[in-house]
Amino acid sequence: MDSDDEAARHRAKMIKRKAVQDAEVAGKTIEKGLLIVHTGPGKGKSTAAFGLMLRALGRGWRVGVVQFIKGAWETGERLALDRFGDQVAWHTMGEGFTWETQDRARDVAAAEAAWAQAQRLMQDGSIRLLILDELNIALRYEYLPLDEVVAVLRERRPDLHVVVTGRNAKPDLVAAADLVTEMGQVKHHFAAGVKAQEGIEF
Amino acid sequence: MDSDDEAARHRAKMIKRKAVQDAEVAGKTIEKGLLIVHTGPGKGKSTAAFGLMLRALGRGWRVGVVQFIKGAWETGERLALDRFGDQVAWHTMGEGFTWETQDRARDVAAAEAAWAQAQRLMQDGSIRLLILDELNIALRYEYLPLDEVVAVLRERRPDLHVVVTGRNAKPDLVAAADLVTEMGQVKHHFAAGVKAQEGIEF
Repeated sequence: MDSDDEAARHRAKMIKRKAVQDAEVAGKTIEKGLLIVHTGPGKGKSTAAFGLMLRALGRGWRVGVVQFIKGAWETGERLALDRFGDQVAWHTMGEGFTWETQDRARDVAAAEAAWAQAQRLMQDGSIRLLILDELNIALRYEYLPLDEVVAVLRERRPDLHVVVTGRNAKPDLVAAADLVTEMGQVKHHFAAGVKAQEGIEF
Repeated sequence: MDSDDEAARHRAKMIKRKAVQDAEVAGKTIEKGLLIVHTGPGKGKSTAAFGLMLRALGRGWRVGVVQFIKGAWETGERLALDRFGDQVAWHTMGEGFTWETQDRARDVAAAEAAWAQAQRLMQDGSIRLLILDELNIALRYEYLPLDEVVAVLRERRPDLHVVVTGRNAKPDLVAAADLVTEMGQVKHHFAAGVKAQEGIEF
């Protein structure tokens, strides 16, 4: 087969593919605030949420972040987000992973305060995107009532996008969500003895 | 069982967990530039790369981005990254998805130009993080020689972090990588007729 044939075949195939693609795009007409869940054991759950935040900030939106578990490793993002001033409302409410605090009552109190803050931000009409970072952890350890949290998320303002991150998302939350991505770990450098590094992990 | 018992049990369990965690962290001593791959059919591959970029920018690093496939949907990120001025070197080299161009020779030429640009940025000592967005697509369609690309990535500067995104990462690339995350699609709002929306998808 000569290369003209091959090019023609490629073109014909791609014309078909484009028609399918265009029809798919045309078939989607609904606009709504999405409930997005990033779960799974792999990396990238919070990082992808921060990437979404970057996009939203670029569009001039105000965004909120509530951290249900305080990460030691948030410095990089925080420094970068300082550039966006009042466009970002950031609340770190948790007190570290539960094996750091070793105190269930304190963890529950912190989760409740974080959830109260999240609900305040949900009612703030200037916020278009809200990230509830590691909320799944608080739900997994039953620091918060699952039914109430899912009900409040379902009844969010129609134009509010919410991103929930953390491993082991509860099935009821997945059922309520519009978009769920499971980050799977294929290979991790920690297993090869590489440590957490500035600029990458924090 | 009264709640004091329960609290004590929780505390004992978490003390053990913390010891394991601390030992794990102490066991990791290697610092190196990572080759990171975000693949899989789910959302968040490029978005998580942009999140990593945000972290790196917060640390004051210079970062490079080469887009092997021009996305129509990059406006949000681009606008946000303008805030970081010269810290970001952004190169959009591809010309749209292959079903948009319908011209294989043009796609190959665009991929080759993008790869040449990527290699220039790899040699620029001021760049600490380089994102090769949708390189996996160019490799999948054999627009670039896999062996050469993997060899160049393996021989990168020891302090350079590289993130490669796109579906269907080649096994040779996965073998060369330090960290591989597979984004799996659990649920997608497009299936429910919701369209791509400003601030979320672009």
